[in-house]
Amino acid sequence: KDSYQITLLPGDGIGPEIMTATKGVLAALTKRCNFELHMTEALIGGAAIDAKNDPFPEESLQQCLSSDSVLLSCIGGYKWDANPRELRPESGLLKMRKQLGLFANLRPAKVLDQLIDASTLKREVVEGVDVMVVRELTGDVYFGTPKGIDVVDGKELYILFGSSSLTLIHHIHTFITDSIFLGKRVGYNNMIYGEDEIARIARVAGDVASKRGGKLCSVDKANVLDVSQLWRDVVIEVMTKEFPNVELSHMYVDNAAMQLIRWPKQFDTIVTGNIFGDILSDEASMLVGSLGMLPSASIGVSGPGVFEPCHGSAPDIAGKDLANPLALILSAAMMLRYDLDRAEEADILEKSVEAVLDKGLRTADIKQENDGCKLVGCIEMGEAVAAIV
Amino acid sequence: KDSYQITLLPGDGIGPEIMTATKGVLAALTKRCNFELHMTEALIGGAAIDAKNDPFPEESLQQCLSSDSVLLSCIGGYKWDANPRELRPESGLLKMRKQLGLFANLRPAKVLDQLIDASTLKREVVEGVDVMVVRELTGDVYFGTPKGIDVVDGKELYILFGSSSLTLIHHIHTFITDSIFLGKRVGYNNMIYGEDEIARIARVAGDVASKRGGKLCSVDKANVLDVSQLWRDVVIEVMTKEFPNVELSHMYVDNAAMQLIRWPKQFDTIVTGNIFGDILSDEASMLVGSLGMLPSASIGVSGPGVFEPCHGSAPDIAGKDLANPLALILSAAMMLRYDLDRAEEADILEKSVEAVLDKGLRTADIKQENDGCKLVGCIEMGEAVAAIV
Ligand SMILES: CC(C)[C@H](C(=O)O)[C@@H](O)C(=O)O
Ligand SMILES: CC(C)[C@H](C(=O)O)[C@@H](O)C(=O)O
Repeated sequence: KDSYQITLLPGDGIGPEIMTATKGVLAALTKRCNFELHMTEALIGGAAIDAKNDPFPEESLQQCLSSDSVLLSCIGGYKWDANPRELRPESGLLKMRKQLGLFANLRPAKVLDQLIDASTLKREVVEGVDVMVVRELTGDVYFGTPKGIDVVDGKELYILFGSSSLTLIHHIHTFITDSIFLGKRVGYNNMIYGEDEIARIARVAGDVASKRGGKLCSVDKANVLDVSQLWRDVVIEVMTKEFPNVELSHMYVDNAAMQLIRWPKQFDTIVTGNIFGDILSDEASMLVGSLGMLPSASIGVSGPGVFEPCHGSAPDIAGKDLANPLALILSAAMMLRYDLDRAEEADILEKSVEAVLDKGLRTADIKQENDGCKLVGCIEMGEAVAAIV
Repeated sequence: KDSYQITLLPGDGIGPEIMTATKGVLAALTKRCNFELHMTEALIGGAAIDAKNDPFPEESLQQCLSSDSVLLSCIGGYKWDANPRELRPESGLLKMRKQLGLFANLRPAKVLDQLIDASTLKREVVEGVDVMVVRELTGDVYFGTPKGIDVVDGKELYILFGSSSLTLIHHIHTFITDSIFLGKRVGYNNMIYGEDEIARIARVAGDVASKRGGKLCSVDKANVLDVSQLWRDVVIEVMTKEFPNVELSHMYVDNAAMQLIRWPKQFDTIVTGNIFGDILSDEASMLVGSLGMLPSASIGVSGPGVFEPCHGSAPDIAGKDLANPLALILSAAMMLRYDLDRAEEADILEKSVEAVLDKGLRTADIKQENDGCKLVGCIEMGEAVAAIV
């Protein structure tokens, strides 16, 4: 196959400008490597709320579903922060993940020699760090039920008890309250995983680890949480049976948060649930020094994956040609590798990004004082990568 | 009052030896400052499991309840790791927290100039860092119900729905399952907070912040979780009404995990729930470079508080006179300040610790290569502090 349908989701803030820069790079790459990308845009996030009153409208879903892959910039902004939750940009992201079944989120944190001084950690601590966080993305407390904010009022309610992909249990829920709690609010979300959900992310992580350094660290809180105990049990079952050659270890999430700072080189691949993965992958990204460099991949059982930078939409600098397009360009490289099976072209993109850094070009977020490098804007950075591929 | 009843919980691993060192220091202090501490020991953790088959036996609880304050070393060890959860040392800790109503956990992370090079972060990033994490300690997903690991089998169950301090809702729980899930395991814990639980920790945090830099950052995941939305609402209500002079901000937990590394000096006091606090306080402790220096205080509505180091029981080095007693000594200082209302004596202890560091004494965990300091053991370090107070 040498022609692909790609949905572009430019999103909010700096999203459109980094998408434009990335399109230029992809145009140069397809020309050089003789394949075609048919790129069409769709709405998500704040842009979709403004246009359709829905942060991930049905049209966008259908367009993604009929594509080979999806490239997403970033979403969000102050403008929508006061909206009710279902009309916030983030809800579009969660809806997209769930509707496309994107249960596996790969977040590499690789320290590039050229940018090592951008890290707040000491050079000797981060030099050579190359961690991959495999985060479960459609389960856990993000999607579990029951959830809500109720006022304890003694009434009867029907609610669902279940996890995201497996809504398996219904129950009848009766408030039998002590009068001292009457009128009080209580907020709750169910942290829940079914064994099949854990097994399938363990398989992805086992596969990723076996193609990397062969070491997998599973992070949980099994000393306190039942859901983590099941997580640990199932990860052990899958890994022992299906990935006997991957070295498996376990770490509590509080310790992992420490060890990532204390001695990050001990990690190769990390696998963890949705909320712990949210926290740890962001923490790990700081080892690299700049979020502006970090891509991510979200993939499902079948159908298109979604590839996006780890950074946000940076509304403060939007439209000022100050944004760093490299994380989106590197996300496009992940798209080529994981969704389009074009590892060679992915390599070309990644090497081109390194080459541009070697040439000394830097956007503001990765420019260090007195580094002798040249400060460039988003457009110039994109053009420089495009010129090299 | 100049005579106090103190329960000492030496615990496991290095616990007994750092407790011995700390007792020596407290003996010197009471002598100098003319007050009395009646110290008696009780069992917790692995030691209690071995002696009483219970990680926090009733006798220990009673002894703590009849004391003015409790000083705890540390618990745990490989020996008990394979035990069922209720017979693990950690369960003793959770039981103690809940039974003593210790809902507020104060974890200072203060970078000492003398140890600044022990941090893996750059000097200019951590110099002067002084963060206090106020962690809620008896609620959240740690104690919420329903919880468990069930095999989906179509049976009816009665379970509790509630939070720790308010077990308020009961329900009838009926599995109505799709046959494809039959026989599958599901693990779950309820992440839940009642408004009173949030309000009382907000009050502690507001009070702490007003006595420090006057800035409070509340950390949650309100863009995804209902329980976090209630957290944020209640924190805003309490702070606006009761602490109008404290500057309140909010941060998502993933961003907080980044910002602690990127620019820790932006934080003064942080308040957050049990699980996020577990992760973030451990992460914050790494700014300081060594867990061996970090005390913590756990306090309740009334009754004795528990004061303990943030470090674990380090079974590898137990009994070898290698442990660092300073975190326990600094925990005793927090005990003097928060439970015994002896701020002056707390100051003396803290200054004595700094003085010993100024003299160049270092246990192995805080010794840097070529720092020109003298390597000492646990006993010598304790004696050195005792000699100064
Ligand atoms: C925006 C938010 C809902 C999202 C998440 O928590 O998953 C983000 O933090 C991320 O990590 O992609
Ligand atoms: C040992 C464990 C149960 C405990 C916790 O998670 O609270 C510990 O990590 C802590 O922070 O005191």
